[in-house]
This record gives sequence, C-alpha cells and structure tokens, in this order.
Amino acid sequence: MARLQRRLAEFAAARDWQPYHTPKNLVAALSVEASELVEIFQWLTPEESMRVMADPDTAHRVRDEVADVLAYLLQLCDVLGVDPLAALDAKIDRNERRFPAPE
Amino acid sequence: MARLQRRLAEFAAARDWQPYHTPKNLVAALSVEASELVEIFQWLTPEESMRVMADPDTAHRVRDEVADVLAYLLQLCDVLGVDPLAALDAKIDRNERRFPAPE
Amino acid sequence: MARLQRRLAEFAAARDWQPYHTPKNLVAALSVEASELVEIFQWLTPEESMRVMADPDTAHRVRDEVADVLAYLLQLCDVLGVDPLAALDAKIDRNERRFPAPE
Amino acid sequence: MARLQRRLAEFAAARDWQPYHTPKNLVAALSVEASELVEIFQWLTPEESMRVMADPDTAHRVRDEVADVLAYLLQLCDVLGVDPLAALDAKIDRNERRFPAPE
Repeated sequence: MARLQRRLAEFAAARDWQPYHTPKNLVAALSVEASELVEIFQWLTPEESMRVMADPDTAHRVRDEVADVLAYLLQLCDVLGVDPLAALDAKIDRNERRFPAPE
Repeated sequence: MARLQRRLAEFAAARDWQPYHTPKNLVAALSVEASELVEIFQWLTPEESMRVMADPDTAHRVRDEVADVLAYLLQLCDVLGVDPLAALDAKIDRNERRFPAPE
Repeated sequence: MARLQRRLAEFAAARDWQPYHTPKNLVAALSVEASELVEIFQWLTPEESMRVMADPDTAHRVRDEVADVLAYLLQLCDVLGVDPLAALDAKIDRNERRFPAPE
Repeated sequence: MARLQRRLAEFAAARDWQPYHTPKNLVAALSVEASELVEIFQWLTPEESMRVMADPDTAHRVRDEVADVLAYLLQLCDVLGVDPLAALDAKIDRNERRFPAPE
C-alpha cells in the first residue's frame, strides 16, 4: 500500500497535477468515483448485484472503479498525513464498544 | 489489510449483518461515507481545505470518515472477490500508457 | 418555483452566505444532500423502500432531504443562470429521440 | 412542473421502466447524476467554476446534468407521493426559525 501511494505520488508529480490535488478536490473526486461504482449497480436487484463478477466486462468495470476509489483515498491520505489502516483499526475498536456483539 | 478485512468480516458476522451486505448496498454505503467526507470540505476554500488537520476535532472527523470509506471498500472487495491493491496496480499501469508523462 | 428561488436568495443574502455559494460549492452540497437521501434507503430491500412513507418519522426525513436537494439545485441554477424546467423539457425531447418507445 | 412529472411518468411507462423505479433505485440514480455535476467542477478553482457557462459545451453539459437531477427528483417524489415545492417551502420556514437573520 505504501508502494502504491508512492506510485500515485510519482504519477501525479510527473504530470504536474499536484496543484489540483487539494484535499477539497480529492474528496470530490473520491465521491465521484464512488458514484461510478453505484452507477454499475443502480438498476440491479440485490440478487443480480451478487452475480456482477460473472460478466467479464462488468467485472472489469468494477475492478476499475474500485481502483479509482482506492487511488483517490490514498492520495487524500497522503496529502493530509492520515494513515488509513490505523484509522480503520481505531474505528473498528470504537465500533466494537458502540455495538457490542450479542452473546 | 487482509487482517482488517478479516476483522470487518468477523464484526459483521457476529451481528448477523451479512444479509444486508449485498454489493448493491455496500456501494451505496461507500458513496454515502464518501459524501460525509465531502461534507467536511464543502464550504472551505482550497487553502482552508489544506489546513483541515490543524483542528483536532476536524482531524478526528476526517480520520473517522476515511476509515468508513475504507471499511466499505474492503467489505465490497471481500464480497465480490476483488483484490483492491492488484486492481489499483493494474490501473496505474494502464494510466501510465494512457497519459504518458512529458519528458 | 420562481418564488422559492427568490426566498432562497433572500435567505442566503440576509446571512451573507453568497460568498460560499460558488457553483463548485453548491454542486458539492447538492451531492451531499442526495447522499443523505440514499442513506435513508441504503439497507432497505426494494419492497421496504416502497413503504418508507408509512412511518411518520422517516416520511419527515425524506421530505426534509428532498427539500434540501431541491434547494441546492435551485440555488445552483440561480447562480449559473440555468432554467431547470426548460433544461428538463429539452432533455426529455432528446431522450424521446434517443430511446424511441416500442410500438 | 406537474406537466414535466407527467411527461416523465409517460416516458417511463411507455418503456416499461416502472419496475426499476423503486424509491431505493431512484435515490441512487439521483445521487449518481448529482455526482456527474460534481465531476464537471471537481478540478476547477472557485473562480473558474463561476465562468463555467461561458463555454458552450460545458454549459450544455451542465444543463443536461441539472435536467437529470431534476428528472430523478421528480420521479422519486411521484413514486413517494411527496410534493417537492411544499417540502421546500416548509423547510425554508423551519430554517428561518433555526438560523435567524442578523438584524
């Protein structure tokens, strides 16, 4: 993941894209990519949504949009100095206290 | 990351939440969390957006929403059998061909 | 609708909110409100989603978020000089040519 | 607006699209269209975002996405029995009490 973050930073730097990569712009781009994932599923029934990877073209589109969401999330974290894995670990800890599992 | 994916799966299983975790519902939840990140930045200038981590409360909110986005992305990948890091690696390869860096 | 647009403009002017109401910020706010609508429905089955107005609290929440989406859409149109009803009329005309109805 | 709502309902009925138009699917489609508006603005500065209608192609794209957002909002309101103008009127009333204007 650190390696991917470095690849993304080098990719942006080589194209002089950093001035565009303000946190405000990156969260907008992240939400746009998340919506492109939603678009794939918007008219599907729950059952159809579970079989989405059976079609090679749709499977490719899903992997592509997942990559885009992750790319903007990692770039945002890079710019803000946030460690996404540590943030998620801490969040699961909090959720375990907030929503105790039934015995 | 594999360990976090396992924690998330166990967390959902212990609460019987898997029936809700269809791909269709998970992408909707992912996009909702991405929008909660946007909400933090929506009225800020680009400059203000760069200083967002200087305020401890906002920094906490940002980390919390980053964690939520990553949580739903990992759960979606788990349900669909997608490897997010491999997907991003392949996507950067494609982008390097599509947008060659200027010499 | 013109009356509502005027009420919204006066509301924002009385609070000196116009500097925040750039088109970029208004579309972000619009998408955040649309996601708050999605949040109400994200874990529901298609059938449950059809009965959402039967619960008075949820019905109130739905009306509230519909109002927020419309508010930002009208403010965006005001700032950009777009007539939303004319835009929709033109769009339906185009769609009728693009997707001819079966006989 | 009632006329547009009728045109949209007839358009969907002529193509047998009503089974897809559950409230859950319509809010997803609404949020996807709102994100397509965001996409137009995501890399622009606030100043550039104010001049977006000066370019005829971008102006057309903006009008097109505004129409799509309004179309799904009206179809959602139709399916749920919500009056969007009344909802917005009530919301502005509430906001005037919540955020009193400075004298």
